[in-house]
Amino acid sequence: MPPTITANKSHDFKAHYDLAHMQDGETDDAYVQRITRYSDGTVKLRNSNIELMDQDILYHLALGSESHDLQEMFGDVKFVCMGGTPKRMENFAHFIMDEIGYKLPAGTQLQDISAYSYRYSMYKVGPVLCVSHGMGTPSVSILMHEMIKLMYHAKCIDPIFIRIGTCGGIGVEGGTVIITEDALDGQLRNSHEFTILGETVHRPAKLDKKLARELKSLHSADDPYDTIIGKTQCTNDFYEGQGRLDGAFCEFSENDKMAYLEKLRDHGVVNIEMESTIFAALTHHAGIKAAVVCVALLNRLNGDQVNAPKEVMHEWQQRPQILVSRYIRKVLTRDGQLKNLFGHQGSIKSPRRFKLVQQESQAHE
Amino acid sequence: MPPTITANKSHDFKAHYDLAHMQDGETDDAYVQRITRYSDGTVKLRNSNIELMDQDILYHLALGSESHDLQEMFGDVKFVCMGGTPKRMENFAHFIMDEIGYKLPAGTQLQDISAYSYRYSMYKVGPVLCVSHGMGTPSVSILMHEMIKLMYHAKCIDPIFIRIGTCGGIGVEGGTVIITEDALDGQLRNSHEFTILGETVHRPAKLDKKLARELKSLHSADDPYDTIIGKTQCTNDFYEGQGRLDGAFCEFSENDKMAYLEKLRDHGVVNIEMESTIFAALTHHAGIKAAVVCVALLNRLNGDQVNAPKEVMHEWQQRPQILVSRYIRKVLTRDGQLKNLFGHQGSIKSPRRFKLVQQESQAHE
Repeated sequence: MPPTITANKSHDFKAHYDLAHMQDGETDDAYVQRITRYSDGTVKLRNSNIELMDQDILYHLALGSESHDLQEMFGDVKFVCMGGTPKRMENFAHFIMDEIGYKLPAGTQLQDISAYSYRYSMYKVGPVLCVSHGMGTPSVSILMHEMIKLMYHAKCIDPIFIRIGTCGGIGVEGGTVIITEDALDGQLRNSHEFTILGETVHRPAKLDKKLARELKSLHSADDPYDTIIGKTQCTNDFYEGQGRLDGAFCEFSENDKMAYLEKLRDHGVVNIEMESTIFAALTHHAGIKAAVVCVALLNRLNGDQVNAPKEVMHEWQQRPQILVSRYIRKVLTRDGQLKNLFGHQGSIKSPRRFKLVQQESQAHE
Repeated sequence: MPPTITANKSHDFKAHYDLAHMQDGETDDAYVQRITRYSDGTVKLRNSNIELMDQDILYHLALGSESHDLQEMFGDVKFVCMGGTPKRMENFAHFIMDEIGYKLPAGTQLQDISAYSYRYSMYKVGPVLCVSHGMGTPSVSILMHEMIKLMYHAKCIDPIFIRIGTCGGIGVEGGTVIITEDALDGQLRNSHEFTILGETVHRPAKLDKKLARELKSLHSADDPYDTIIGKTQCTNDFYEGQGRLDGAFCEFSENDKMAYLEKLRDHGVVNIEMESTIFAALTHHAGIKAAVVCVALLNRLNGDQVNAPKEVMHEWQQRPQILVSRYIRKVLTRDGQLKNLFGHQGSIKSPRRFKLVQQESQAHE
């Protein structure tokens, strides 16, 4: 349905938003809180058109506000974890299920909620939503609009968004876990550039610094790798955009490339990926606490192609997941919710006997 | 492997490219032909680093220049068809297989060649490669670099790239097939903006006008829909970036939106999508003939949400596929190749008896 805005309701939204501007004496935080949260902590949209619509179709998620009971389905969501590929997010869903002790009813398995969109994949494990966002800022942008609207329709309370990704490191070794302090664009601006009705708009690409520090504090002394906080550059391309020599085109020299990467390093950039500015800008605009946690697949100061063995890469990609799972466990424990999840009766009484029964069963074809 | 550029080979590539610049009296076309094709018509890269590398890993395609015999696998590719979702491209692969009468060996089925990348899907049907490119220009950018390099490694002769997409129409009804004449960015520039080593570079977003006219000529008077040529705007977002009122944020009025869409229409823009500028800019830079054929899912002058019934949408999405298949058949027929493909002995002698045997077989469980 097109938004059902009738003639008399078709007022000037710009004026409406001007009224919603900061009030005298109001702090930044108080202002954002007021325009992005209802008094019970549920998500409020900075778009009054949505509540005037008959139905809001979340087109790329294969969900609708009237076709689905979104509050019933998603009202308990506390953490929205996003990453590039459907496979990684499916793996994370199973991993976090084990980590928080979440039990599915007998005879059920996780299902891709957005399978019929053919675009993103979404898995729900109790309070944790695991969603793939594809590659690059436009793909993330579409997902973020629909995820923020989903939070609103589902009346989620203070959800936290975390991107779990991979990246190229600048001066850090492959396998290092990097928490983003600030997301910078191709011109090293701490913002994301939008084009809205043909006009250029910059929105700050701010992430939650407290959340970043809390995540960093969950690094364990036993972890056989480093976990660091630093600046992340977000580019619109993997090859020329990240100064790689091995794209279909390369019109700069190896010296030009190294000078550029060293300039980034001197600016405090520790990694490059392709999604952080839009993720930071849209969560910040929606008043949603957010963090970006990536693992470096290589040190770009040493080369361009990713060539760690598959098993090593697989283990590396689990590292951000482990850090984020520690955070989710910590918050759920603090809120007294982890015990509730663990409290569910599991289906396996004896793993040893369970395995024997499986083997017996398989033998009788 | 990092590019194995040894110290003495590490010359200034910029100088190298300066030497490769246009020669006195050389036409634009002759220049592009010279730097992007070998004398036998196979694809030449505008990046001399690649031939110096031990192996070129096409990371996002799950292919490598030394791990796979890319010439054996892909040397016969003539058409590279791309579209957003894996599902659409799998459907197109099966559709084009029927249309060109391509027969698979007994007991085989199409396989997703890039399944292990978990990013793009790729199906090969004889001379036609069907690849999904995800959403947005960065996702397309990564794929284009690797597809152009694939054409080079496979020694493909004069491949043609066609994007088959969906879009929002401006003043055209849902179901209309639109062939892009020029791809414009958010500021209505006929170029794509790259950021390379921190510098802004614009490359012309040019498509092949002759190919566009040839595609248009294949519209049939019996087609119950229009097929038009017009300008396409490419945006980095689906909601605010396309002037939609129904995103998570909306800071403009319905009047602002309509004024903007009417401005686009007055400028000759007939549709908006999210991939055309990068697709046009990178194919043009590589000297590859390319076209963009999309179906409009709605007329944006009438609303924002896509709400045609599923069956209607499904039928609409076949329309660009039908047009492109007519073109591929025409070229293959002209080159005397269609008969070769059809010449393969099919596996089904009598469709009626085939069905009966299937039913019989199913009855005996």
